Amino acid sequence: MTDAAGPAITGFMEQALAEARAAAARGEVPVGAVVVRGGAVLAAAGNRTLELKDPTAHAEILALRAACRAAGSERLPGADLYVTLEPCPMCAGAISFARIRRLYYGAADEKGGAVDHGPRLYASPVCHHAPEVYSGFAETESADLLRGFFRERR
Amino acid sequence: MTDAAGPAITGFMEQALAEARAAAARGEVPVGAVVVRGGAVLAAAGNRTLELKDPTAHAEILALRAACRAAGSERLPGADLYVTLEPCPMCAGAISFARIRRLYYGAADEKGGAVDHGPRLYASPVCHHAPEVYSGFAETESADLLRGFFRERR
Repeated sequence: MTDAAGPAITGFMEQALAEARAAAARGEVPVGAVVVRGGAVLAAAGNRTLELKDPTAHAEILALRAACRAAGSERLPGADLYVTLEPCPMCAGAISFARIRRLYYGAADEKGGAVDHGPRLYASPVCHHAPEVYSGFAETESADLLRGFFRERR
Repeated sequence: MTDAAGPAITGFMEQALAEARAAAARGEVPVGAVVVRGGAVLAAAGNRTLELKDPTAHAEILALRAACRAAGSERLPGADLYVTLEPCPMCAGAISFARIRRLYYGAADEKGGAVDHGPRLYASPVCHHAPEVYSGFAETESADLLRGFFRERR
């Protein structure tokens, strides 16, 4: 990564956090994601499983689908995905199919994550494209958002 | 399963196969899926990743999303999913989130499957709902369709 990468990562992760906050305001699990290619945002989305009555409407899936629509292709080589939470198996799989180059995530998800926990999908022989993975960005803010959300629900 | 289950399974798997054949005719990887509840088909779909330019448009995802729209809920308790091929990590995850009761699949997928191969998702601690899994239905027809498709492409 170049010297300029640090501030850029912070900015895109801040945008993912804004999507997560907007999801919380809609009563959805607060996770947000941004797809970036060549320094430009292709798509950004927050979780909308309840609103859309769609179990696949995680932030990453919605952002990937919108980015593919924008790019006119079912693959996004050279694109990076920023997400506030470690992706689940479904999203980790979609990230692989979309040929995402780099995955930046915020908080680890010991109970539901599939990148550095559980199935560790990108190390599996059935995974045919693994992105480079960077984690721990905006970790505290990302985790606090989720904790606050679930605390209020209880 | 009751005595009537056998013919019913065969019928729904035949419908999934018809979706797979239709996918092949569209130039898509031939996989088909059907979601059933209370003996009625909620949704049926074939793979459309190329047509929709959507890496998440696998047969199972499209069938689950359509079934959720039909049911008006992001969860489908009591519903079963029939698919011609062992689901990948993305689809296996979506099946779990949708709370599918039983998964019936045709051919095993040693290279990309996540149910009985690779991550064996439903045995993973990060999987919070696992369907009952039955496999080997219409196995030969399902696998032959895929083999024929990829042979022609080469």
